[in-house]
Amino acid sequence: MSDSRKPVVRRFQKKSPSIYPIHEYVSEIKSGNRAVLAKAITFIESNESTQFQTGQNILKELLPITGNSVRIGITGVPGAGKSTFIERFGTMLCEMGKKVAVLAIDPSSPVSKGSILGDKTRMEKLSTHPNAFIRPSPSGQSQGGVHRKTRETILLCEAAGFDVIIVETIGVGQSETTVRTMVDLFWMLAITGAGDDLQGMKKGIMELCDSIFVTKADGDNLPVALKTKNEYNQMLRFLKPSTPGWTSRAYTCSAITGEGIHKAWEIAQLFVENTKASGVFFERRKNQTKEWLNASIKDQLNQLFFENETVKAKLNVLETAVVEGRLPVALATTEIIEQFILSLKLK
Amino acid sequence: MSDSRKPVVRRFQKKSPSIYPIHEYVSEIKSGNRAVLAKAITFIESNESTQFQTGQNILKELLPITGNSVRIGITGVPGAGKSTFIERFGTMLCEMGKKVAVLAIDPSSPVSKGSILGDKTRMEKLSTHPNAFIRPSPSGQSQGGVHRKTRETILLCEAAGFDVIIVETIGVGQSETTVRTMVDLFWMLAITGAGDDLQGMKKGIMELCDSIFVTKADGDNLPVALKTKNEYNQMLRFLKPSTPGWTSRAYTCSAITGEGIHKAWEIAQLFVENTKASGVFFERRKNQTKEWLNASIKDQLNQLFFENETVKAKLNVLETAVVEGRLPVALATTEIIEQFILSLKLK
Repeated sequence: MSDSRKPVVRRFQKKSPSIYPIHEYVSEIKSGNRAVLAKAITFIESNESTQFQTGQNILKELLPITGNSVRIGITGVPGAGKSTFIERFGTMLCEMGKKVAVLAIDPSSPVSKGSILGDKTRMEKLSTHPNAFIRPSPSGQSQGGVHRKTRETILLCEAAGFDVIIVETIGVGQSETTVRTMVDLFWMLAITGAGDDLQGMKKGIMELCDSIFVTKADGDNLPVALKTKNEYNQMLRFLKPSTPGWTSRAYTCSAITGEGIHKAWEIAQLFVENTKASGVFFERRKNQTKEWLNASIKDQLNQLFFENETVKAKLNVLETAVVEGRLPVALATTEIIEQFILSLKLK
Repeated sequence: MSDSRKPVVRRFQKKSPSIYPIHEYVSEIKSGNRAVLAKAITFIESNESTQFQTGQNILKELLPITGNSVRIGITGVPGAGKSTFIERFGTMLCEMGKKVAVLAIDPSSPVSKGSILGDKTRMEKLSTHPNAFIRPSPSGQSQGGVHRKTRETILLCEAAGFDVIIVETIGVGQSETTVRTMVDLFWMLAITGAGDDLQGMKKGIMELCDSIFVTKADGDNLPVALKTKNEYNQMLRFLKPSTPGWTSRAYTCSAITGEGIHKAWEIAQLFVENTKASGVFFERRKNQTKEWLNASIKDQLNQLFFENETVKAKLNVLETAVVEGRLPVALATTEIIEQFILSLKLK
């Protein structure tokens, strides 16, 4: 292990990285080395088996020092002002001496392939702050894959000493529900004047939220923003709180005047304090890990099954027979499962 | 095959039923024989493998003549007046010459074990009508099991000539979501005065509804019922319709005055007419069948995995290692899946 940091970084950058011993990555990440952290995330994200395995081995060593951050999920429709909010909120935290990581999750959009540039451009100030680390969504992957990678990236960032991890989702598909399962707090940003719909109502997102922030509450827009905030509060009364013992409420904020931005951090701290005192914080994290393992196993099992050659060859035929009313579902199920077991035995 | 019906029924009742040839059950059910229909449902519900297989074989023969009913799912909190509504609505349909089957689904409640008596008592008039068939929830089963059995019972009832199948759920756990996947129309019954909560809001049930009926809209309660109806209509505006091309609306009804009961049937007919014209009706049924097959396969696969002795022996150890931060989720997953495959090969 080298005793000065710089040469190690240079070596990491120059050669094929997987030839270095795991403990070098581990100690560099522990000491906060960004370049090595980014490398390790790349391994985690890789589908190439040596790189994947290296990533997992690094993660395994770092696991004992993970968990020491506040994980905040942020959602909101496009145009709700997520980037602007995160830019301002994150920069404020960085200036307070916090280390802030921003991870984007966007499972279904091919647009995210270009989001490295996108993220850096839209969070110009934050992305250049020495305390901030911005990582775009791993692209071109299955939903399950993206989720695993984001969860593991959270852990790596925590091992690298980040205090606040922001997971941003643009709310495509089921992404909010999944982000809720990987964060401590879940926030929605909302704008006024997007028709008479309350964003998040239709898809059941509001039920997931610990706080809602109505953005752009400044200038001429302030009265409308306050009205919208009240409507959300009205609606929240009907919903079961996302977190036991915490009353979900709506607030206003403005990235221009800065109003409500510091308040958001106070709310986050209060949330963490309350839920740690009640035990809900730790219970949720434990359950999240268990459910992640369970989901991971089921994903893997489904993959094993649905990518099995025998299954692939038979399934369409059986499905057609079922849809056309020639075969009951239960018999079709038994048959395909038996074929699957047989094919594993013959391998 | 016997040429008179009565002796067959007697034989079915006296001896062990699985010794009769499948085609006898099939032709008796086709001709509307209740006793034989009930027997076949018992086979479907049985976990004993000969009976189960007999049930599936009967179902297979009957499949081509299934599908000719309107399938209506009805939910509502306890006390919302479901039995009273179904009693009145079902009796009206029976008197119009329709054949009506009422199936209860109540996956998690041990109470349903006694619900045969319960159902007959609470729907006294309907249960004695020659055009009606009331079948309680299969009890003591896993959720997946109950759902399969209810779906298959729907098919058997259709083969026996029932025109309207009502699937009633008391709304425990995820049962509404599942019932929605097995019916053409989904209705919620609601009462006034249950606090300031709109029932169904909290759990996202309203999004599943094609119509909401505020019950007990009579006497002194009428003004409040009308107000509640308006509140639901207000709320429904914010939600995505459950059925493409159909606007979900709230109505009032009274089982005492009979107001709104015939209207409910008109709404059902209009719904069927519209969705058949647009193709949504047939598309939904086809997708429901496909999704049922898919869910059935996944259920079966999970059972194969989680009831595997090797998996059972290893899973807890791995889960503990993951929760305690000694093993990454991805590595635990790979290990357990490999062990599972190995155990199948060795069998």
